[in-house]
Amino acid sequence: MNTFGTIFRVSLFGESHGPVVGVTIDGCPTGMKLTEEELMTDLDRRRSGARGTTSRVEHDNPEILSGLYNGVTTGAPIVIVTRNTNKISADYDTLKNIPRPGHADMTSLVKYSGFADPRGGGHFSGRLTWGMVAAGTLAKKILSPAGVSAEVTEIGGTTETDRAIDDAIKEDDSVGGIIECRVTGLYPGLGEPFFDSVESKISHIVFSIPAIKGIEFGAGFKSAAMRGSEHNDLILSSSGTTLTNNAGGINGGISNGNEIFFRVAVKPTSSISKPQETIDISKNRLADLIIEGRHDVSIALRMPVIVESAAAIALADLKLIDRGVFGERENR
Amino acid sequence: MNTFGTIFRVSLFGESHGPVVGVTIDGCPTGMKLTEEELMTDLDRRRSGARGTTSRVEHDNPEILSGLYNGVTTGAPIVIVTRNTNKISADYDTLKNIPRPGHADMTSLVKYSGFADPRGGGHFSGRLTWGMVAAGTLAKKILSPAGVSAEVTEIGGTTETDRAIDDAIKEDDSVGGIIECRVTGLYPGLGEPFFDSVESKISHIVFSIPAIKGIEFGAGFKSAAMRGSEHNDLILSSSGTTLTNNAGGINGGISNGNEIFFRVAVKPTSSISKPQETIDISKNRLADLIIEGRHDVSIALRMPVIVESAAAIALADLKLIDRGVFGERENR
Amino acid sequence: MNTFGTIFRVSLFGESHGPVVGVTIDGCPTGMKLTEEELMTDLDRRRSGARGTTSRVEHDNPEILSGLYNGVTTGAPIVIVTRNTNKISADYDTLKNIPRPGHADMTSLVKYSGFADPRGGGHFSGRLTWGMVAAGTLAKKILSPAGVSAEVTEIGGTTETDRAIDDAIKEDDSVGGIIECRVTGLYPGLGEPFFDSVESKISHIVFSIPAIKGIEFGAGFKSAAMRGSEHNDLILSSSGTTLTNNAGGINGGISNGNEIFFRVAVKPTSSISKPQETIDISKNRLADLIIEGRHDVSIALRMPVIVESAAAIALADLKLIDRGVFGERENR
Amino acid sequence: MNTFGTIFRVSLFGESHGPVVGVTIDGCPTGMKLTEEELMTDLDRRRSGARGTTSRVEHDNPEILSGLYNGVTTGAPIVIVTRNTNKISADYDTLKNIPRPGHADMTSLVKYSGFADPRGGGHFSGRLTWGMVAAGTLAKKILSPAGVSAEVTEIGGTTETDRAIDDAIKEDDSVGGIIECRVTGLYPGLGEPFFDSVESKISHIVFSIPAIKGIEFGAGFKSAAMRGSEHNDLILSSSGTTLTNNAGGINGGISNGNEIFFRVAVKPTSSISKPQETIDISKNRLADLIIEGRHDVSIALRMPVIVESAAAIALADLKLIDRGVFGERENR
Repeated sequence: MNTFGTIFRVSLFGESHGPVVGVTIDGCPTGMKLTEEELMTDLDRRRSGARGTTSRVEHDNPEILSGLYNGVTTGAPIVIVTRNTNKISADYDTLKNIPRPGHADMTSLVKYSGFADPRGGGHFSGRLTWGMVAAGTLAKKILSPAGVSAEVTEIGGTTETDRAIDDAIKEDDSVGGIIECRVTGLYPGLGEPFFDSVESKISHIVFSIPAIKGIEFGAGFKSAAMRGSEHNDLILSSSGTTLTNNAGGINGGISNGNEIFFRVAVKPTSSISKPQETIDISKNRLADLIIEGRHDVSIALRMPVIVESAAAIALADLKLIDRGVFGERENR
Repeated sequence: MNTFGTIFRVSLFGESHGPVVGVTIDGCPTGMKLTEEELMTDLDRRRSGARGTTSRVEHDNPEILSGLYNGVTTGAPIVIVTRNTNKISADYDTLKNIPRPGHADMTSLVKYSGFADPRGGGHFSGRLTWGMVAAGTLAKKILSPAGVSAEVTEIGGTTETDRAIDDAIKEDDSVGGIIECRVTGLYPGLGEPFFDSVESKISHIVFSIPAIKGIEFGAGFKSAAMRGSEHNDLILSSSGTTLTNNAGGINGGISNGNEIFFRVAVKPTSSISKPQETIDISKNRLADLIIEGRHDVSIALRMPVIVESAAAIALADLKLIDRGVFGERENR
Repeated sequence: MNTFGTIFRVSLFGESHGPVVGVTIDGCPTGMKLTEEELMTDLDRRRSGARGTTSRVEHDNPEILSGLYNGVTTGAPIVIVTRNTNKISADYDTLKNIPRPGHADMTSLVKYSGFADPRGGGHFSGRLTWGMVAAGTLAKKILSPAGVSAEVTEIGGTTETDRAIDDAIKEDDSVGGIIECRVTGLYPGLGEPFFDSVESKISHIVFSIPAIKGIEFGAGFKSAAMRGSEHNDLILSSSGTTLTNNAGGINGGISNGNEIFFRVAVKPTSSISKPQETIDISKNRLADLIIEGRHDVSIALRMPVIVESAAAIALADLKLIDRGVFGERENR
Repeated sequence: MNTFGTIFRVSLFGESHGPVVGVTIDGCPTGMKLTEEELMTDLDRRRSGARGTTSRVEHDNPEILSGLYNGVTTGAPIVIVTRNTNKISADYDTLKNIPRPGHADMTSLVKYSGFADPRGGGHFSGRLTWGMVAAGTLAKKILSPAGVSAEVTEIGGTTETDRAIDDAIKEDDSVGGIIECRVTGLYPGLGEPFFDSVESKISHIVFSIPAIKGIEFGAGFKSAAMRGSEHNDLILSSSGTTLTNNAGGINGGISNGNEIFFRVAVKPTSSISKPQETIDISKNRLADLIIEGRHDVSIALRMPVIVESAAAIALADLKLIDRGVFGERENR
């Protein structure tokens, strides 16, 4: 549904063209400082504006509605919203009977019996990730001193990302990309097998981000072509440090103290300026489709901070679960 | 933890060398026939014995301990176990201070403060997937008439799987592989965004299977190198049929009525006969490691039925959630 | 934590003197009409103003932030808030070191390490029940045509409620009361034993309402003094109608088609004008306490709509779970 | 459904006349000793045999199927079962069309569409509480040094319990009773408002025990007749000790460090030897009913250890949640 987590629980709400998008964070430790300025640090990284991202300027200023007192978390649920101000609904009005390929238009029509908010993708808009990033700011504090960082490593199959973006722009097209994410300084022991392995939790939340089509940990898909003698990471010390990191920092679903490493595949933005065809539901025949409006050429460009946030939320939850069941790690 | 699902809830328990491994299934509709023979159909596919799998002969006969009456489900939780009979604990006794690379030996030692059952991998053994397959038999019935099927498509980077297996055997090594899974005949509308997308649910449970290191849906990692005009699947009819299936049958986290398609990367078996090095924790220096015992050359060979079961469990849960919130689909 | 429910999920947030109090409702069927005027019908019943309730005039107008489009539910989470406008924080400033008896002052101080919002009871304020009533409006629609109604039947141990209120007012004191709640027209079969019996779900949410100290179903505590021959309800027809209703409409944790009936005990308001003593934490000795501000003489007077809402939320969730696992009841 | 708890998770399974009844405990800290003998201490208290309890002799010996190694908990789920050996199914065969008043016969028939196991009450049998008591043994260890104890204080409306039992036996009838439960030595701060108050969690699990019809905390229903000046417990010291305990050790849903105290009402056993009438479903008219078999005259007599276990399970879960979110209490 719209909540992720067992102890550190993150819930998203809002629609692209409704009054707000926002997030509720429950199960957050007390006494953590949080300012709207701090939130802006990550939210600004998510914001559009760079070359290849939509020209829709989002007024992303967060408003903290609950859960803080004197600037610190109180133990009550934290609700953070941002108002949707830059809404041009006209762009989307013609799309009612002509579902855009690659979008949730058709599936949400069926699932919600025609009642879903269609304006700007409604609850399916990438704008919903705003709340995930806001929650990520708190999650990262919980994980501290461990650090989470992600970056774009490929666009359109090349590391020359600017060129790939330029080419796509020229052709009124969009293009996919690869994000790599690393978590450093995380102590070993997080993860709750059988079902709540580190990979399970991270992949669960990462696949809730629109446009993600693949995830791999450590050597990932390359593992399938490897030998065991090559894939096994040599353990060098009693602290668990390994020579290589084909495991991506996870054994048996539990963090092993090395860097957590994973890569995600981001599909090209579905909305493109180039003319396309799609079904016209009212006539049950193909029709031409021109998507108006402002779109990211590569949604991957805005992904790193979202992927970081997702990973941080998953790991913060695992950290609190582990502490709950097994006690403070440093005490053991 | 050890339970997956919101409505159709599957819980695994047991250890490789304990009295049993088993599964509890809660939230199962009533009046479904289930025989121990039916269970054996899938359990036999998971069983070892084929070339490249361990010579440990498992007596996998299921015993249904609760939840059935007159051969049909009653609405009460279904518990199915199998006795562990073929246990050779001596194989594992020497491993206490010398964690096997690629295994959960080191991480479980840390996480469970030395209390985890070490015999045969304990609760981390691939043997735990027995219960997942048993639950899968029921999940597949819930999904019917939709069908789930998976197969090995690559071993060691080649589609000539037998050759790759032979080569690895000759070198006392192990080798990874690729599994492809397809769900056909599934109606559109399953999936509960924002967080419980079809991809989220499937990846969550698939990554709980030991040895999985990557998953991709539809065009997957190839999407990252594609253009939007190429990736977008042309919608051909009002029923949502698409010309291509780069989306893997899922848009916006919701099934679109086309085939659900995903691929998973299976790492090579960590236990190999070839000599290796690892840390000797008691001495904090490297030591030689010879892993005795019987092991799969490629765990991927036993994976298809496990991956099918995982997918079926995730989708059965989504089907019951969808029916709970939105009513019978055919009524809408 | 701050979420109740498995499918129909209600989350509360906000503080008495923060910007808002509010509620998120997830897992709500689509296509349900909801207006702010409808919400006001129940919210007005909860509002203060009657004799015996606080003179704090609450501007309770609901603002729907998400989950509706064209006035109907969309399948996305519904967030409803109301602004806190009538805040007089000065009343509470002196209470920091002198915890009010009967309140959460002392326990929240300990639990949240001094970080809880103390203004007006913070997240522990009865004002949080505003969101429960707003969610109740939707829950009642889901239960329709079944109806939920509650009333005050006793104040201060007597059915002459006005006299009991007057007496308490004269003595600058407060007084407790009894609420009775009935659910009529509910079909049999709701409830998910073993753990999610109808009584379990209703009592769980009812005991989250501040000031509730007891609950009993059907004959309740009287059952303890009864004989089986007297307590057993004679089943009169194949539809399950019973002659008496000592069971309160529930057998084996499952609704039996008769009226669901339960009573709750509401303690007297903890805040009284009468002088009291309490510990002064800073000095670790008793101190005089005068509680300023505006308080309900009997919080029970505002309870009926809150108890109704709680029961409706619990039963709506059970209705959707039952439909999820077992299908539409009318289809069976 | 059949699982209770967020971190410390208890799942029950089995049927009265199936192969076993049992319990799964997930989320249990590691390194806790547990022997079958220890389990028997509480299980023996639950067992029948005393005057007023059924003459069905239960062979309650527990078998630990998983989760222990070298006699201590490993972090993996603990499954404990007992075989059902003393089964006389003939007693129940005639009841198919004539639902026993006060039982779940009629409601389970409707809910499970006729598929529920009818033998001995199936999954609705009081025998299911066996697993709750087994889990309670572990829960009590988690709560230690706090202690949980319950006792019968009234049978049939009198404290002269033996006389009430004798009278009921003479008249081939059954009789209800009152159980009081106390938790001593529990530190303050447990409970997760808004929805997971101590009262919410305890009442939730207590109402899953068959035959419970009411629960009250502290002054309970008497609170409804009290004044605030009388009900408020005077706080005597900075540690939170109060002079009286009308709150039952809980303020704002959080334990306050005083004794947790609650009372539950147990209805008379529904199965009585005295002739009764009930509907004959096949003929839709009243029929005479003689219930054969062995029954407790007062199920209340076996309740104390079950109520203790329920309370311990609820509080153990709250203890681990509190530690997860807020850290070790002693560290704060």
